[in-house]
Amino acid sequence: MTMQYGPSYVREIAPYVAGKPISEVAREFGLDEAHIVKLASNENPLGMPDSAKAAMTAAAAELGRYPDANAFELKAALSAHYGVPADWITLGNGSNDILELAAHAFVEKSQSIIYAQYSFAVYALATQGLGARAIVVPAVQYGHDLDAMLRAIEPDTRLIFIANPNNPTGTFVEGPVLEAFLEKVPKNVVVVLDEAYTEYLSADKRYDSIAWVRRFPNLLVSRTFSKAFGLAGLRVGFAIAQPELTDLMNRLRQPFNVNTIAQAAAIAALNDRPFLEKSATLNATGYQCLTDAFDKLGLEYVPSSGNFVLVRVGNDDGAGARVNLALLKQGVIVRPVGNYGLPQWLRVTVGLPEENEAFIAALEKALATA
Amino acid sequence: MTMQYGPSYVREIAPYVAGKPISEVAREFGLDEAHIVKLASNENPLGMPDSAKAAMTAAAAELGRYPDANAFELKAALSAHYGVPADWITLGNGSNDILELAAHAFVEKSQSIIYAQYSFAVYALATQGLGARAIVVPAVQYGHDLDAMLRAIEPDTRLIFIANPNNPTGTFVEGPVLEAFLEKVPKNVVVVLDEAYTEYLSADKRYDSIAWVRRFPNLLVSRTFSKAFGLAGLRVGFAIAQPELTDLMNRLRQPFNVNTIAQAAAIAALNDRPFLEKSATLNATGYQCLTDAFDKLGLEYVPSSGNFVLVRVGNDDGAGARVNLALLKQGVIVRPVGNYGLPQWLRVTVGLPEENEAFIAALEKALATA
Repeated sequence: MTMQYGPSYVREIAPYVAGKPISEVAREFGLDEAHIVKLASNENPLGMPDSAKAAMTAAAAELGRYPDANAFELKAALSAHYGVPADWITLGNGSNDILELAAHAFVEKSQSIIYAQYSFAVYALATQGLGARAIVVPAVQYGHDLDAMLRAIEPDTRLIFIANPNNPTGTFVEGPVLEAFLEKVPKNVVVVLDEAYTEYLSADKRYDSIAWVRRFPNLLVSRTFSKAFGLAGLRVGFAIAQPELTDLMNRLRQPFNVNTIAQAAAIAALNDRPFLEKSATLNATGYQCLTDAFDKLGLEYVPSSGNFVLVRVGNDDGAGARVNLALLKQGVIVRPVGNYGLPQWLRVTVGLPEENEAFIAALEKALATA
Repeated sequence: MTMQYGPSYVREIAPYVAGKPISEVAREFGLDEAHIVKLASNENPLGMPDSAKAAMTAAAAELGRYPDANAFELKAALSAHYGVPADWITLGNGSNDILELAAHAFVEKSQSIIYAQYSFAVYALATQGLGARAIVVPAVQYGHDLDAMLRAIEPDTRLIFIANPNNPTGTFVEGPVLEAFLEKVPKNVVVVLDEAYTEYLSADKRYDSIAWVRRFPNLLVSRTFSKAFGLAGLRVGFAIAQPELTDLMNRLRQPFNVNTIAQAAAIAALNDRPFLEKSATLNATGYQCLTDAFDKLGLEYVPSSGNFVLVRVGNDDGAGARVNLALLKQGVIVRPVGNYGLPQWLRVTVGLPEENEAFIAALEKALATA
């Protein structure tokens, strides 16, 4: 007799298939790790800032001790930087943790959560993990259709996920449009505004979502140190919301969810403006390089406000997987997005100039042969 | 109008009150951090092993990248060390994460979870966080009453938490007794055997719980690198169970829950037998020192198999808080356990010889004046 453990909604979650780390691609395709180019996970190609490395080294003496569960120093730094009280801040083990905590804190089984087609995979996972009901609103031009999302709200809707810029498509909703949306969402529905890529926005696109948190008691802004700040390997994300939402998130939060090294490194990275500026400039240049090449190759792409581009590599549903395999064989790792319902597309992270060039050369070969 | 966000069972969770970090006690009581003795969180007083420090430094180059979501190297090391396939292993952001994942994976709202009175606080939190029903079985001599726990099983019971040794009481159930219990638990009820302190057991108390995992498809053994392995600040725990339970845990697990540094350090610590032996010896000597002092002072204590001792510091329900405050003023941080329903007791971690002596001297003063 086979036992059936766990709730049916847990058993129905698709087992997670991780992106391929460099070491695994090297093993699988018999390649030299040093020659592999990874543009698959929207990481900062500059790596971790030196300021954060120094802070990390200084914190390493205390690793036999538990982390500070209240993260006094990191919350003080975030509080000063964003101009909000410390009790408006929730820390997460990456923003993945923030997104899961939000779903868990504000929604229960069978209630509904709204998110857009082609938006971040964790929204679906967090919904399924609760046995909640997903209302997936069709995308318009690969981005959020906010009017349709408003119309999709049902009496049992408790949460709406909005990613801006959106991953994996890179689409962006202008600040005033988002603000008008927030004004119309009923106050009993929490809006999680996931701004993982906000530090990459050009000056003309910036808006002040922290000011909105002051106006809207149902708004929670999610941020991460994994992208422009360069700390993906250490795991720090955070949320800013008014105290009522923050308090509920913290009741569920595992007290030691953010490790000691990560707390120290995040403080340094937060205040390293030159590193952020360098990252944004590098990204703008690299984005231009990639999209120029796509234009030259006659490939459709979605204009992106993040540190990645979604590019259509063929017109049949085998194209993404086929071109991805041809790239892997050449030691280039990008992200196939068939699991997002985009089987003709690949998502490519903007890398260092030499990484972008290596990718473009490999893509040309892949398109010619695959 | 005040909004009521979130399910009622989330709103009912008591806000977490963290233990006081050294820096906070220094601020609050105007003390010099260098002279504060912290015996509050059952950490390894030797800190992190040097082997792990070296591994950590080597891994620090890659922190701009996400961690390996499958933790290939760490799982291979655990697999070799414990003699189980990699697909029997679930990694957690500390064993707190493992305990939460287990509750979430195997239990849904309104179903019941069994745990013992005076057992680890996270069992109650994980139960409340799901809106599940707690069946708390009264302790016998501050430890688990396994026969009563068997009798407490109801048709909707899906999970039983057993801590061995137990925290905060230090009590221990002999291997054969636990094995007989596992034979009687219905196979549709998952047993989470939390062995956070197992590395401190003396040779005569050891038993082979991994062999039990092979026999019992409903058994999940939880371990941590935060205690004897000395890595509390980095956050690594793991579970060993047969593939069906492991698969469900991994469907809910956040893919990047264990950070890069922690994965590298854990591999080194796992294979650092001299460090573990030194830690166990230091603990045995320190335990003897503390309990000798309690005997001399005529204080009742619960014989402990962990790296801490529960000691009764008075016969009135204000005793724990009063003596704790008197200790804090002298720069000694221990753990009051009023939240466990043990207001006359304090939990003291076994420290370095000089820390134990400083605690004893401060305790004598505290008892005389408090």
